[in-house]
Amino acid sequence: MTQVTLLTDFGGADGYAAAMKGVIAGIAPGVAVDDVSHDIEPGDIRGAAWALFNYFRFYPPGAVHLVVVDPGVGGQRRVLAAEIDSRYFVGPDNGILTHVLEDAEPVRAVELVEPRFRRAGVAPTFHGRDILAPAAAHLALGVDLALFGPGIADPVRFPIARPVRLGGEIRGEIIHVDRFGNLITNIPGRWLEGASWLDVAGSRLDALARTYCDVRSGELVAVIGSSDRLEIALRDGSAADALAIGRGQPVRIGIGG
Amino acid sequence: MTQVTLLTDFGGADGYAAAMKGVIAGIAPGVAVDDVSHDIEPGDIRGAAWALFNYFRFYPPGAVHLVVVDPGVGGQRRVLAAEIDSRYFVGPDNGILTHVLEDAEPVRAVELVEPRFRRAGVAPTFHGRDILAPAAAHLALGVDLALFGPGIADPVRFPIARPVRLGGEIRGEIIHVDRFGNLITNIPGRWLEGASWLDVAGSRLDALARTYCDVRSGELVAVIGSSDRLEIALRDGSAADALAIGRGQPVRIGIGG
Amino acid sequence: MTQVTLLTDFGGADGYAAAMKGVIAGIAPGVAVDDVSHDIEPGDIRGAAWALFNYFRFYPPGAVHLVVVDPGVGGQRRVLAAEIDSRYFVGPDNGILTHVLEDAEPVRAVELVEPRFRRAGVAPTFHGRDILAPAAAHLALGVDLALFGPGIADPVRFPIARPVRLGGEIRGEIIHVDRFGNLITNIPGRWLEGASWLDVAGSRLDALARTYCDVRSGELVAVIGSSDRLEIALRDGSAADALAIGRGQPVRIGIGG
Repeated sequence: MTQVTLLTDFGGADGYAAAMKGVIAGIAPGVAVDDVSHDIEPGDIRGAAWALFNYFRFYPPGAVHLVVVDPGVGGQRRVLAAEIDSRYFVGPDNGILTHVLEDAEPVRAVELVEPRFRRAGVAPTFHGRDILAPAAAHLALGVDLALFGPGIADPVRFPIARPVRLGGEIRGEIIHVDRFGNLITNIPGRWLEGASWLDVAGSRLDALARTYCDVRSGELVAVIGSSDRLEIALRDGSAADALAIGRGQPVRIGIGG
Repeated sequence: MTQVTLLTDFGGADGYAAAMKGVIAGIAPGVAVDDVSHDIEPGDIRGAAWALFNYFRFYPPGAVHLVVVDPGVGGQRRVLAAEIDSRYFVGPDNGILTHVLEDAEPVRAVELVEPRFRRAGVAPTFHGRDILAPAAAHLALGVDLALFGPGIADPVRFPIARPVRLGGEIRGEIIHVDRFGNLITNIPGRWLEGASWLDVAGSRLDALARTYCDVRSGELVAVIGSSDRLEIALRDGSAADALAIGRGQPVRIGIGG
Repeated sequence: MTQVTLLTDFGGADGYAAAMKGVIAGIAPGVAVDDVSHDIEPGDIRGAAWALFNYFRFYPPGAVHLVVVDPGVGGQRRVLAAEIDSRYFVGPDNGILTHVLEDAEPVRAVELVEPRFRRAGVAPTFHGRDILAPAAAHLALGVDLALFGPGIADPVRFPIARPVRLGGEIRGEIIHVDRFGNLITNIPGRWLEGASWLDVAGSRLDALARTYCDVRSGELVAVIGSSDRLEIALRDGSAADALAIGRGQPVRIGIGG
């Protein structure tokens, strides 16, 4: 069974996400829609892009990942569908694919302009319901990506700070704070070989641990997280609260000696 | 595949909504239950009624919309099932259908009294699980509405303020504040032809825009929202917070000169 | 259709729960995953155990209940699967089954050690995705529980205060506060025969009611709740807020004259 996943910043209590699911049910009755979440902070494209990166590849090939975090709805931004790493992606072209495109195979992307695959009478304030949900449903039914509109060579990506090596140091930054207050950085696990110390907001850690439980309750711990990035956590608490820091803050790592 | 949607004010963390879904799975194993949300404010019948209005018609005919916001559970209020506009509705008879009944076809409604379609040993504090979920499941299986109980001619509706025309003005009010802080009014889109100004809580807007992006970040904007009602928004922010107003506040519109 | 339910403390916005659902979709494509909630307070094993108790038995026999509230992930705690009362349970062995085991049939439980039923390259910080979701998916496919690993005779249970009878009194305590602020106690309904008064945090109630509506708005009311436990509520409000009490607080009941 083809699967459509749905991630939005709509919350649930207004019925907006349900309207999208109803549209999909109408077009593609046998297709299951899997709610990822509707609790992305309003307009938080970076948060949505990171969440998408955390789940997209665990769904089987052919899955359609629909993401609607769309502060520019009705404006100049394009709406797109893309095929990456054998999965389909549908959403506004505003950066939501940024992390997916970091690691994944080359992309085939199109602009969603074909009227056949939109609802009649598109509301300028709700492309999620009237353009993106119908596109996801038609992709789930097997409609060829090329039929939705002209190709897009350059899906929008927001700038991601890249970690750098500077002498005996790696300098990176925090790119996401999760629900537990864990600080997720842009430093891939493979860079950490030989790490001897870590500095985050003036707090120094002397070793990389395997998991959160390798320290005592209330202590900071650095691990390679489940998406293969360096992550700083506080056992049984929130590292973000304890250090009072968040996205964009620098992290330094000493390598060797 | 028949679809049952579920909207409640139960939250998720107590397992109440899941108990309902389990009951449905037991009675109607092939039926998919689609969570709309469990985040309606406790007891907020008006909020639930508006959300339902936003999604009900996007589901295909035959869908069963189950809504459990039921502050009067176990008391004198009736529980009902209704067929409106080829969809089914199940819930307490406390006003949740008010907005659906504004726009939609005449209704066939019944009181849910038939013991065959209830769980044995109904808990007086949880009709959602013991009466309403079984009713939704049986409707999804194709049981005739008439078998559930006697007809109801007058489902409860809460009073909705109607917009009025007074000389060159339309006077309406805010009926819902959504997650983005958008202020949704009771004024249908077609009333706005010839609108020349709009006043909301002393803030004056000089034109109706097409979408949120037609103004600069931080500015107020009036649009016809995705459910065809006048809506006041703040680009990249919350109009409700900026104006410190909410449900019930007046909105005035000048027509012509 | 076999059903897998999913309860976690992951929230939705990080994509962790979706990663688990993707893993299940990959292993068991025809199996429906039913989100219970991802809003358990981080690390709140007791809250998850109570929620599970509220829904597990309403799903049909054969359902697989997956619970991931796992503050000890990667540490010494075991991970288990169990068959209880014809349903399957998968999760960390940290007490989540405590309430289920209070009322239910004897248990068959195993430790999840078999590599065939894990993802390759288990992340030490995310057993939910790499061990527990695959186990749930394989159980849903009908794999025999015994193949997952050696038996566990003693699943972890946290200590539950038992209500006691002391002369003409029953002494119990509050074990859960739900979303409505209702105070759920450890006192089963059948103990309440002949109850003449109830004291909770110095507030005295003179009778057991049938449902919340049996008192006036703003008044306290004691009922036998939908999971057959004594429950103290405040009509149209939160008893927890009004009394400023929560889990662990004592409740006393007078029996007879």
